[in-house]
Amino acid sequence: MCHVPRPTLADIARAAEVSTATVSHALNGTGRVGDATRRRVRETATRLGYGTPGPPRTRTLGIAVTTFPGAWNYTDIAYFSRAVTAATSAAHARGYALVTLPADRAADDSWHHLAVDGMLIMDSPRGDPMVRALRARGIPLVFDGVPGDPLPGDHWVDNDHESATREVLDHLASSGARRVALQSGSGGEHYAHAVTAAYERWCADHARTPLIVPFDETDDGGNAFDALLGDPGNRVDAVYAAYDPGGRQLLAAAARHGLRVPDDLRVVCASEDPAYARTTPPVTTLTLAPEQMAHAAVAVLVALIEDDGTVPSGPVTVPAGLVVRASSEACPAQRV
Amino acid sequence: MCHVPRPTLADIARAAEVSTATVSHALNGTGRVGDATRRRVRETATRLGYGTPGPPRTRTLGIAVTTFPGAWNYTDIAYFSRAVTAATSAAHARGYALVTLPADRAADDSWHHLAVDGMLIMDSPRGDPMVRALRARGIPLVFDGVPGDPLPGDHWVDNDHESATREVLDHLASSGARRVALQSGSGGEHYAHAVTAAYERWCADHARTPLIVPFDETDDGGNAFDALLGDPGNRVDAVYAAYDPGGRQLLAAAARHGLRVPDDLRVVCASEDPAYARTTPPVTTLTLAPEQMAHAAVAVLVALIEDDGTVPSGPVTVPAGLVVRASSEACPAQRV
Repeated sequence: MCHVPRPTLADIARAAEVSTATVSHALNGTGRVGDATRRRVRETATRLGYGTPGPPRTRTLGIAVTTFPGAWNYTDIAYFSRAVTAATSAAHARGYALVTLPADRAADDSWHHLAVDGMLIMDSPRGDPMVRALRARGIPLVFDGVPGDPLPGDHWVDNDHESATREVLDHLASSGARRVALQSGSGGEHYAHAVTAAYERWCADHARTPLIVPFDETDDGGNAFDALLGDPGNRVDAVYAAYDPGGRQLLAAAARHGLRVPDDLRVVCASEDPAYARTTPPVTTLTLAPEQMAHAAVAVLVALIEDDGTVPSGPVTVPAGLVVRASSEACPAQRV
Repeated sequence: MCHVPRPTLADIARAAEVSTATVSHALNGTGRVGDATRRRVRETATRLGYGTPGPPRTRTLGIAVTTFPGAWNYTDIAYFSRAVTAATSAAHARGYALVTLPADRAADDSWHHLAVDGMLIMDSPRGDPMVRALRARGIPLVFDGVPGDPLPGDHWVDNDHESATREVLDHLASSGARRVALQSGSGGEHYAHAVTAAYERWCADHARTPLIVPFDETDDGGNAFDALLGDPGNRVDAVYAAYDPGGRQLLAAAARHGLRVPDDLRVVCASEDPAYARTTPPVTTLTLAPEQMAHAAVAVLVALIEDDGTVPSGPVTVPAGLVVRASSEACPAQRV
């Protein structure tokens, strides 16, 4: 396609037969300009293509999860699946298409040329090459989760992981837990770091020793918990698993060690998977509200693209929610 | 970007220093060509850009639901939401991005220029303007649901609506129903037509009078059923609702008329909404298997795009499944 040079104020002034000062006032809504003149200037400006963005609008938003390089399928994880579905609905409601990028797309350079008006980046780690390239192209960005490399003026939507993690730990303590371990990640994304830091502060506040088990998505049997569950005289009586499969891993580990949940081991898991309502026992979950996160992120992104004056000045915080189920109910002594 | 003319067989023959017949045999795997020659010809062809598609590959698939014009949000319907999620996962697993178009996108012309390698069109009605434009551009298409305007060589994935509808009706008859009505659509998409036709044939086979209630998505109270439920001496005792909200509409209508489900009124609904397992009573559903439909459709579309020899010669049929719940259990006389 051919690109027409964008008109200057002088071009518009000449075509509308007014001064450049009048053009400036008419377009910016400042100074005293009569209605008819204002209308004529604005129509002339529109006709000449003034204010048209450089590249044509595609009315398409992009969404990508850049946390881990390589070919993992994030849509198989309930959080991302629900966030993508909600983002699609929110984009469509505003007349935008939504393009979802596969996780391994960062490995090639096809997304350098991606035709989008803006991108929603989920759980961006430090040194994210996609973010660097999109920033260089001047593509509006909104992050779902504080980005690994935030810059002044960045926009993001996130939960308050400090207060959400403390809510989980306080809940476990109030249900009788005395030794609470955390299963957390070691990736470069903000979430893993924020949850771990909140846990360590909570432990310090309560004079407890932090016990952190690294999350391993391939550990279906929860063997990573053996060291904490194996010694009857010195085992933990609660674990908060910050990643979706952790609850299932813990149920498997408890069964292997002959521990009853919740009597011997209380379990809470951050997850959006409804299947945790049907495990034996049902598992208490912390929902990070992916639908609300995605709706809020799309709203900010569209506001940025359309420059409509509704862009929030700071981060948007979405409440997390504790769904208490049998796996963390009060200890036997407190039950009938 | 600049377009290099695509090489002819003669160009390749000249560059590889063989005859054009040898080039043809080497590229098509026919005739007797030595391994070294075959390799040299193929490498030369690749180097010259033979077989490279005209427009650059975007490694992006598109998906759209074109059934109804205007701004309805199809991702709010469980069938489409689950199909889109599954299509995203299937596209990503093959290294493709997936762009989901809003329903009202057909009203403008931005999708005429959509940068996709292929499109998946769901429930395309007759006279679909998007399909016409995509055909004109030579974009590979796969339909989810027989298209309204099928052409020879079209590819689609669908359920066998004839046998699925008969399975529902036979189930209702075996549970004691004697007057079975159908709630169906009047849109231009194949689904509405196929289900209605199957119902009419089943009625003819069983010497029953067809009773068809048009689906109205705004009729939350199921008032459209009043005529069939109001007269105690002449009311229907079963309804098959072919659209997702129909089951809820029927429960509301039954309550208003003081009818017990299933004793007075048996209800089956085509739906993917898990909430039907928790209504009072839980509603028997027919699942049209949106995940399997989407996975199969993406597989065919990628095979078409990559021309890898795995394109099926005919339509792909995905089985529907009846999930029997309390709303259509055997009649009172047969129960304990």
